[in-house]
Amino acid sequence: MAEKVTPRSEDYAKWYTEVVQRAELADYAPVRGSMVIRPYGYALWENIQRGLDNMFKAIGVQNAYFPLLIPHSFIAKEAEHVAGFAPELVVVTHGGGKELEEPLVIRPTSETVMYSMYAQWIQSWRDLPLKINQWCNVVRWELRTRLFLRTLEFLWQEGHNAFATAEESEEDARRMLGVYQDFIENWTAIPVVAGKKTESQKFPGAVNTYTLEAMMGDRRALQCCTSHNLGQNFSKPFNVQYLDKSNQLQYVWQTSWGLSTRMVGAIVMAHGDDQGLSLPPRLAPTQVVIVPIWKSDAEKAQVLANAQQLVASLGKDLRHRLDNREEYSPGWKFNEWEMRGVPLRIEIGPRDVEKKQVVLVRRDTGEKTTVPQNGLQDKVVALLDEVQSNLYARAKAFLEENSHQLDSYADFKQVIEEKGGFIWAHWCGSSECEAKIKEETTATIRAIPFDHEGESGKCVYDGRPSRGRVVFAKAY
Amino acid sequence: MAEKVTPRSEDYAKWYTEVVQRAELADYAPVRGSMVIRPYGYALWENIQRGLDNMFKAIGVQNAYFPLLIPHSFIAKEAEHVAGFAPELVVVTHGGGKELEEPLVIRPTSETVMYSMYAQWIQSWRDLPLKINQWCNVVRWELRTRLFLRTLEFLWQEGHNAFATAEESEEDARRMLGVYQDFIENWTAIPVVAGKKTESQKFPGAVNTYTLEAMMGDRRALQCCTSHNLGQNFSKPFNVQYLDKSNQLQYVWQTSWGLSTRMVGAIVMAHGDDQGLSLPPRLAPTQVVIVPIWKSDAEKAQVLANAQQLVASLGKDLRHRLDNREEYSPGWKFNEWEMRGVPLRIEIGPRDVEKKQVVLVRRDTGEKTTVPQNGLQDKVVALLDEVQSNLYARAKAFLEENSHQLDSYADFKQVIEEKGGFIWAHWCGSSECEAKIKEETTATIRAIPFDHEGESGKCVYDGRPSRGRVVFAKAY
Repeated sequence: MAEKVTPRSEDYAKWYTEVVQRAELADYAPVRGSMVIRPYGYALWENIQRGLDNMFKAIGVQNAYFPLLIPHSFIAKEAEHVAGFAPELVVVTHGGGKELEEPLVIRPTSETVMYSMYAQWIQSWRDLPLKINQWCNVVRWELRTRLFLRTLEFLWQEGHNAFATAEESEEDARRMLGVYQDFIENWTAIPVVAGKKTESQKFPGAVNTYTLEAMMGDRRALQCCTSHNLGQNFSKPFNVQYLDKSNQLQYVWQTSWGLSTRMVGAIVMAHGDDQGLSLPPRLAPTQVVIVPIWKSDAEKAQVLANAQQLVASLGKDLRHRLDNREEYSPGWKFNEWEMRGVPLRIEIGPRDVEKKQVVLVRRDTGEKTTVPQNGLQDKVVALLDEVQSNLYARAKAFLEENSHQLDSYADFKQVIEEKGGFIWAHWCGSSECEAKIKEETTATIRAIPFDHEGESGKCVYDGRPSRGRVVFAKAY
Repeated sequence: MAEKVTPRSEDYAKWYTEVVQRAELADYAPVRGSMVIRPYGYALWENIQRGLDNMFKAIGVQNAYFPLLIPHSFIAKEAEHVAGFAPELVVVTHGGGKELEEPLVIRPTSETVMYSMYAQWIQSWRDLPLKINQWCNVVRWELRTRLFLRTLEFLWQEGHNAFATAEESEEDARRMLGVYQDFIENWTAIPVVAGKKTESQKFPGAVNTYTLEAMMGDRRALQCCTSHNLGQNFSKPFNVQYLDKSNQLQYVWQTSWGLSTRMVGAIVMAHGDDQGLSLPPRLAPTQVVIVPIWKSDAEKAQVLANAQQLVASLGKDLRHRLDNREEYSPGWKFNEWEMRGVPLRIEIGPRDVEKKQVVLVRRDTGEKTTVPQNGLQDKVVALLDEVQSNLYARAKAFLEENSHQLDSYADFKQVIEEKGGFIWAHWCGSSECEAKIKEETTATIRAIPFDHEGESGKCVYDGRPSRGRVVFAKAY
C-alpha cells in the first residue's frame, strides 16, 4: 500500500508539496524554481482552460498569440510598470551565437508588446471595443518558489481589452472579475472575497486592481486572479489612439485581467485532506473510477463483464475510468484514487454482481451507499452535483468560521498569530498604517471589499476615522 | 472596396505576405523575425489543435507541460543534437538583475529537458509505453524569416514516446506519421508525399526521420511535420532506463514528432488564390457567412428578420456568422469574406425573402446556386463536404501535374529551373551526389518514399545503381 503523506496538521507546507507530487500533478524541473506539469495536473489545467475560455468567448473575447520576447525598451515605457517588474526580469542577451544589439526580456506579462500592436490595429471608434486574450507562458525571476503557487515560469491567460471611454474600462475591469468569481465559485468550488487592492498592492501601471481572495486550508489567503483598470496609463506611452465620432484623436481606455496555473494549487489547498486531493467534479479529469473486486478467476470474468456494462451505461458525458489493472489490489487502488481526488468511486464485487447493485463512495465525505445498477447514471450525476455543492459549502463554512471582525490592534495581533484567517478591521486608508501592520504582523490588506462603506469606525492601527472594514490576512 | 492583393503570378512571395496580413491571420511583431498571430489566424490554429489533439488522445497520448528554460549543459549531452541546434540557440544570461551561473537556453525543442524527467519517472516495464505531448512555444534564431513559415518563435506540439523495444519505437515513428497524414489530408485538404529523410536532412539526434511533404501553389515543397525514431540516442546520455521483466536494466527506445503553426502557412499557399484565402471547411473558423442585402429600411427589416431565422435553422454544429454591419456594402463584404477564405456565402435579398430562397456561393469555385430556404441546413452541410473534397482533389491534381519522373540530369536541371515541382529521380544513396545536386540546382531530397524500392535504375547525377526514385524539390 502506498505510503501516507505528512498530515496537514503536522506540516502544512510539506503536506502540500507531497500531495502535489504524489498525486502526480507536478514535479520539480532541473532549473531552480521551475516545474513540470505532469499529465494529471495538465488535464486539470485543460479543464480549467476549457471552462474559462468558453466564458470569455461568450462575451466576445477572441484569442490570439503575441511574442515571448519583448524589447527591453518597451518595458521601460511605463514608469510604474518597469519599477514593478525590473527585479523579476529574465534577459536574453545572445541569439544565433552573437550578442544582441538590444537585450530582450522574456515576457513577465504582455501589456507592452500587445499595446504596441493595438496602436497599429486600432484606428477609429469602429475598432472598439477590442477584446483579446492569450493563453501562454510567462517568466518572472522569483526567489522563493513553490509548485504551482510561485514558480519561475507559469502558464496563464491574460486578457487585454480596449475601450472608447473611462466608464467602459472601469465597468469592464469589474465585469471580468465577475466572470472569474462565477468560474471560481461554481467550477473550482472555492468561495472568495472580492474587492479592490490598495495602492501598495495594485498592479504596476494600473489605476485600479480588483482581486478575488480565497482562504486556504491553513487559513492563509491566496490571490486567485486580478483584473486591472489601466485607464490611459499604457495607451499614452504606446500611442494607442482612435478617431472618435467627431473625428478627434483620443487615447483608448484599457483593462487587463489574468488567472494562472496557481489556481491548481488553490484547488489542492482549499479542498485537500490527509488522504490527498479532493477535486471538484466539474473540473476533475476523472469524475468516477470503477474498481472491480474479485478473488477467483471465475469471479474475475463475471465482475469484469458486469463492470464493463456499467461503464457503457455511464455514457460519454461523464469522465469515467475502469481500473482493471491486475498488478494492484483493490485497497491499493482505493488509496491511489483518493490521493488523486477522484470525486466518486464505484466498487463492484461478486456479491454486487449477484444482487445487481454497486457500492458508491464519495471522496469528500467518505460516505458509502449501496445502490441498484439500474438507473446508475442518474444516481452518479446527482451525486457528483452533491459533491460539487458540498465542497463549496464546506469551504464557505470554513471561510466564515475563520473570518473575524476585530476592533483592537491587540486582538488583531493575537488572532493573526494564534488563529490566522481573515481579519475584517477598520483602516484609515493611509499607506503608513498598512505598512506598519505588515511589518509588525506580516498580514497585508488583501482586499477593500466592494461594499465596505457600510459601516464607519476607527482605524485598528492609529484610531483615525475609517469608512469601512478591509480584509487583512497572511497570504501566499 | 478593399484594395486587391498582388496577383500570385506576379510575385508569389509578396502575394503570400499580403494575404496573411490582409486576411488578418498574422502581423509582424516588434522583434525582428517574430510575429503576432491575430485572432482569425489563432482561431484557425485552435481548430488545428482540436483536431489533432483528439487524434492523439484517442491513441493514448497525454498532454503535459515542461519548462521553457533548459540548462545549456543539457543541450550538449547528445553530440549531433547540439551540433544541429547550437547556431540557432537563444541564450538567457541574466535573471533577477544578476548574471546566471550557468546560461539557460530557451527551448528550440524539448527532448533534453523532457528526458531528464523521464529518467526519474520511468522505473520498470510497467511504466512503458509512456506517451506525452505538449503544446508550446519554441524559439530558434532564424535569420531569414517569413510569417508562419519560419519565425524566431513558433507554436507547435511535440510528442515524445518511450518504449521497451526497438521495434516499437520504429513502428511508433511511422504510426505518428500516419496520424499526421490522416489529419493533413482529411482536415487541411492537402495531399502529401510520405517518406524518410536522408542522413543530411534528418533531425539532429535521430536514427530515422520521417516526413510529409506538400506542394505549395508555386510548386515548391513544404515539410508539413516530422516524426523521428530516436532509438537510444537520447536514453543513453539521459539515463532513461527501465527494469525489464527479467529484472535487467535496459535503456528505453524513443520517438518524437511535431507539427507547428507553419501548417497555417501551408493552408494559405496550398489553397489560396488572387482573391485571398480559401479555407478547408473542417478547419475554417467561420464555415458559412450570411450576407443580407437591402436598399430601403422596409427591405432591411424584412431581410434581417428572414436572415435571423435562417441563422437559427443552421443550428449549433455549423460555425456560421451573420454579417449585418451597416457601415459596409454587400459587395465590400463579399470581397472581405472571400479574402478570409470562408468556404460558403449565403446571400439573401428582398426577392429571395419573397421567393423563400437564398443564393449559395462557393469560395472554391465561385459557383452560385439558388436553393429553397426549406432544408437549407442539409444543403449547406452537403456543400461544405463538397468544398472540402474539391479542395483536396484540386490540390492532388496540381501535385500530380507538377510531379515529373526524370532520368537525365539535363532534364532535371531544366525542369527544376523552368517548371519547378517535384522531381522523381533515381539516386545512388551517396551524400556527395545529394550535396552536388543541391549546390547546382538548390533542389534537395525531400523524401525517400516508403515504397521507393519498386524500380531499380541509375543515379540521375553519377549513374551509379539506384534501388528506387526519391523526390527532389526546391523547398521552403
